[in-house]
Amino acid sequence: MLNYRNGLDEMPSYDGVEKNYRVKVNANESTLSLPPAVEERVMNRLALLALNRYPNEEYYSLVKQIAQNFSVDAAQILLGGGSSEIIEKVFHAFGGAGRKIVYPQPSFSMYKIYAKAADADGVPFDLGRRFDLDADAFIEKIRSVDASLAVVCNPNNPTGNALTPEQVEHIAASINCPFLLDEAYVEFYGRSAVALVAQYPNLIVARTFSKAYGLAGARVGYMIAQAEVTRMINKTFMPYHLNVLSLAVADVVYQMREEFIPRMKMIIDERERMRARLKALPGVKVFPSEANFLLIRLARAEELKDYLESLGIGIRYFSPTAFGLKNCLRISIGTRDENNEVFAAIENFLEVGAT
Amino acid sequence: MLNYRNGLDEMPSYDGVEKNYRVKVNANESTLSLPPAVEERVMNRLALLALNRYPNEEYYSLVKQIAQNFSVDAAQILLGGGSSEIIEKVFHAFGGAGRKIVYPQPSFSMYKIYAKAADADGVPFDLGRRFDLDADAFIEKIRSVDASLAVVCNPNNPTGNALTPEQVEHIAASINCPFLLDEAYVEFYGRSAVALVAQYPNLIVARTFSKAYGLAGARVGYMIAQAEVTRMINKTFMPYHLNVLSLAVADVVYQMREEFIPRMKMIIDERERMRARLKALPGVKVFPSEANFLLIRLARAEELKDYLESLGIGIRYFSPTAFGLKNCLRISIGTRDENNEVFAAIENFLEVGAT
Repeated sequence: MLNYRNGLDEMPSYDGVEKNYRVKVNANESTLSLPPAVEERVMNRLALLALNRYPNEEYYSLVKQIAQNFSVDAAQILLGGGSSEIIEKVFHAFGGAGRKIVYPQPSFSMYKIYAKAADADGVPFDLGRRFDLDADAFIEKIRSVDASLAVVCNPNNPTGNALTPEQVEHIAASINCPFLLDEAYVEFYGRSAVALVAQYPNLIVARTFSKAYGLAGARVGYMIAQAEVTRMINKTFMPYHLNVLSLAVADVVYQMREEFIPRMKMIIDERERMRARLKALPGVKVFPSEANFLLIRLARAEELKDYLESLGIGIRYFSPTAFGLKNCLRISIGTRDENNEVFAAIENFLEVGAT
Repeated sequence: MLNYRNGLDEMPSYDGVEKNYRVKVNANESTLSLPPAVEERVMNRLALLALNRYPNEEYYSLVKQIAQNFSVDAAQILLGGGSSEIIEKVFHAFGGAGRKIVYPQPSFSMYKIYAKAADADGVPFDLGRRFDLDADAFIEKIRSVDASLAVVCNPNNPTGNALTPEQVEHIAASINCPFLLDEAYVEFYGRSAVALVAQYPNLIVARTFSKAYGLAGARVGYMIAQAEVTRMINKTFMPYHLNVLSLAVADVVYQMREEFIPRMKMIIDERERMRARLKALPGVKVFPSEANFLLIRLARAEELKDYLESLGIGIRYFSPTAFGLKNCLRISIGTRDENNEVFAAIENFLEVGAT
């Protein structure tokens, strides 16, 4: 028997291939592929890459663009393989045996796993009944366990609600430990906390190209923090952790990011339209959302999930044991046609169920 | 002051952009981009990718191909971001505070860093004067420190020499801890130890697309071990650690891997031709190599490196403090023209120096 790292045996594995749903609204992806003008530039750029060479200046090209956009120094930016790798490495940097990492629940289910992967203890903090975060109680929890890291997903996945920048600032100002703000969905909210980084040396903001920029498959994310923090976190990234294809694609997409603004607006409009329609359905609770998805609660959630799957519609269902998410379903916002189809199917399910 | 992980402060960072050398023979890359027929298929495949979706079946498609080629079960294969990520994660899986990871020196300089990143202690084992590895002394070292992992790069980087499969088997059979064999350069040697995996549950073989398949920029590698070992190592990989672009490129390249065989032969022929020519130069020691590079030793190595750089030729020079590598230079094998240019420059340097 080989002598594995302590705790490795309890870690889960991520295997298995997902079904190919006809309407895929289960993973908060962008439902649209790249805008045609962007796609053309992307393919032209890919054709020019020297794949035989190790990545070199491609990393800095994207870093410089992001730094310029946020008016921060390039030394304040690190890139990762999706915000996933950013979160993994930030957890590692502040982890270790006996260290405590505090995050709300329900929230992104991977925080618990990233804490374990960092040899640390994940400490969940319960959100309220409407998934509101009581900032003062959260601060108190962070202090009472002497946390080495606090994490908030803002807007929160899977609940959709968001802290205001003022609430974020209140937390950052009130704790001594680092505060990782996961802004994976912030483009659908519009109120980023990046500007607070200048003032708060403990604030780390993670962002991604996976959602609003439609690059979930390319795995590119970034973090913004004070240069002294990025200097330390950078030590957790091994050389050549990013590939030239993804870097080149993200570089083109960021150059052409104006092209994505109409899509973000479309998603926000569709979210509000879907929210209003779903709210009008009997027995369906719809939570307010600042993201590209809606969380709903209804008595026969699991049955509805099965029904939608039978129609080729994939949505996200939560295990009955997931804190606060009993009978909840998360529906990503797609195109107008997709949303209409999802809505019609839910409506039909409820009507059939009533007979 | 934020409370970083123990030991993080001593970790190095990998920053900085490399010079654009006209002749780049410093990083053991393939000097050739993809064969035109492969490149065409790669671009066609890239154009079909749904970048907006998280990676899904692309991982398994490549795993199945590799498993079939080696006649092993798909469950015995894991993919990583280059063999770099494979090594990082294997070290992590067997690392932890107080654990010892034994590897030869001189060898791949990152082993020391990966050991630190895994919170473990790197324990170097000295190679002989001709960089030969005394297998019995190595086994004794592994036992005496009660190592949690032993690692050998085969053929060895930067020295070029290789253990025979019989020597590899002797080591695997004689130690109880896991044995990671880093076969990054094995295509230029031809004697892989993958077939031994069936017999030795402690043997893990790491391979890469970066060298013989010319995909250093795409960052794809893999490991082969018994299924119980891959099941555990798999827990160290976070979801979506690989991107669809790299997976698709590697998938096409592996389908068309016959196209790369003439190139591997060319590199081997050129290596032997360069070795014979360099050996004939006065004061130049050339070590035998089974890889895509040659290690040479000469009195004025640093001066030669500067001279070659002044001509736009990048080669690898080692710090005088690097164990066993004083006055050594590593020269990757390029095209015939590139090799001729490098040789002529070295010859010229030695003649000028003699006047």
